[in-house]
Amino acid sequence: MTNKAVLSKPAPMPFASKLKQYQQRVDSALDYFLPADDPPEHQLAESIRYAVIGGGGKRIRPAMVYAAGEAVGADDRALDLPACAVEMIHAYSLIHDDLPAMDDDDLRRGRPTVHKAFDEATAILAGDALQALAYEILTENAELNISAEHRIEMLRLLTIASGANGMAGGQAVDLASVGKKLTLEQLETMHQLKTGALIRASIMLGAMCQPELAGEQQQALDGYARCIGLSFQIQDDILDVVSDTETLGKPQGSDAEQSKPTYPAIIGLDASRKLALEQHEAALEHLAGFDSRADSLRQLSAYIVERDF
Amino acid sequence: MTNKAVLSKPAPMPFASKLKQYQQRVDSALDYFLPADDPPEHQLAESIRYAVIGGGGKRIRPAMVYAAGEAVGADDRALDLPACAVEMIHAYSLIHDDLPAMDDDDLRRGRPTVHKAFDEATAILAGDALQALAYEILTENAELNISAEHRIEMLRLLTIASGANGMAGGQAVDLASVGKKLTLEQLETMHQLKTGALIRASIMLGAMCQPELAGEQQQALDGYARCIGLSFQIQDDILDVVSDTETLGKPQGSDAEQSKPTYPAIIGLDASRKLALEQHEAALEHLAGFDSRADSLRQLSAYIVERDF
Repeated sequence: MTNKAVLSKPAPMPFASKLKQYQQRVDSALDYFLPADDPPEHQLAESIRYAVIGGGGKRIRPAMVYAAGEAVGADDRALDLPACAVEMIHAYSLIHDDLPAMDDDDLRRGRPTVHKAFDEATAILAGDALQALAYEILTENAELNISAEHRIEMLRLLTIASGANGMAGGQAVDLASVGKKLTLEQLETMHQLKTGALIRASIMLGAMCQPELAGEQQQALDGYARCIGLSFQIQDDILDVVSDTETLGKPQGSDAEQSKPTYPAIIGLDASRKLALEQHEAALEHLAGFDSRADSLRQLSAYIVERDF
Repeated sequence: MTNKAVLSKPAPMPFASKLKQYQQRVDSALDYFLPADDPPEHQLAESIRYAVIGGGGKRIRPAMVYAAGEAVGADDRALDLPACAVEMIHAYSLIHDDLPAMDDDDLRRGRPTVHKAFDEATAILAGDALQALAYEILTENAELNISAEHRIEMLRLLTIASGANGMAGGQAVDLASVGKKLTLEQLETMHQLKTGALIRASIMLGAMCQPELAGEQQQALDGYARCIGLSFQIQDDILDVVSDTETLGKPQGSDAEQSKPTYPAIIGLDASRKLALEQHEAALEHLAGFDSRADSLRQLSAYIVERDF
């Protein structure tokens, strides 16, 4: 850690404990918002719960929402809405990405993927319903200190991050690039769409729960979000090369097997590690103007490049 | 037509001409909002345009938005946003419904379905991106007389109509009911979710472009929407039995072939026709308190039960 605010304060809560707190918090909120699976003829709700709650999941994106909200002193109670929304978008994208016509994965977090545990039609519909629910949650008529104008902005950010100029567009470019040689720049553009847009949305939605968010803070967090979005993807690519299947919960080396362009494939493993660390340092620099309330964001950035799963 | 307001006025524009006007209007708005397909590596945008614009489409749901807006004197310029939004939700659902894992249709409006013209992965992503775009449009920062609170309500209505307790849920129940014997009541519940929810949303979103919408008007339109939602589905089932493949743009009798429960299968063709007409009459009754500005809605209801495609 290079940041003075961290050094001059009593040791903050270890990030693993904090992440666990975030996870428990979003899990309880997700349980509240997801459809009940009691009507027996309605296996759609069951498949949605299986996908979102059943297998755990790191809840990194909700953690980003909470940590960004903390950093700007946002209304704490409001953060559950965007935290659930970004996790649902993420979960829906995993369900569809795993389909035979896409990445064709049988395992996700060590369990059968949704189309394996249920069937393909259910998996398609579960993803579709989850996407709708993610946005619906942001319209919740809760007694929260978020103005309707702010909610519209949040919805606008999240829909753009998810659509053709965000996650779905990135996935399309990714599929089109299998077996092709990409330049580092093309790879970065693809990842900015595929994973970066939703990570950025997670940070910004958390920050937008502070109604008085200052323009400089917003810009700084945007810069931070772009850095961790990139380091997150680089670390993912690295882990695909070095981890074993058990830790990863999906077949190791599956990217290389499918000839997907990755950072290690283009610039090598060592240069990839160096690039990830550089992005982490740059992320911290973007937070230079923030006080100790941004410590969770600082730790989160470190966690992203240190994680081994 | 049983309605006095219609009879006491000069003959209104024939509905076919009016529908054509609505179609041209929404087509031009869709062209504006859909992603540009110029980046050559980005066939996602091309597939989205192929699905939404390429094949024409009846644009019944946008017509519902425009006609409902007219009936309550809504800000005319605002109606393009919900008109495009409901058509995009409809288009995305068709793309996904046509997939091999769902209804497995090769033809749609007489052309190859999206997964046939492109591939399955592209079809899944095109549907996903279209769903996001539908909601994004409702957040457009246009200079329109719709308050942020109203937009949130519109987004809430549309997301609920599309999700697990609406269209996606209805499709799941539909798939689960193939080969099963449903009661008339179960069939109605399924259709209220699968097609009724989006039809109701189309009517209500159009009406909500009138910021001063009276409570009774809202309730009356809700009743109207439920009636035409039902007659629409009954007529669809009837057409599947009586039309030929060329007129329908999909293989005739495909519902029966897949042992899908339909109105003619449960209550017979004549009783189905009678039921559709009863719903049409009931729809008109809900409009009894409206003046001649609701004539388009009246004609629309008649059109739904008279159409032969």
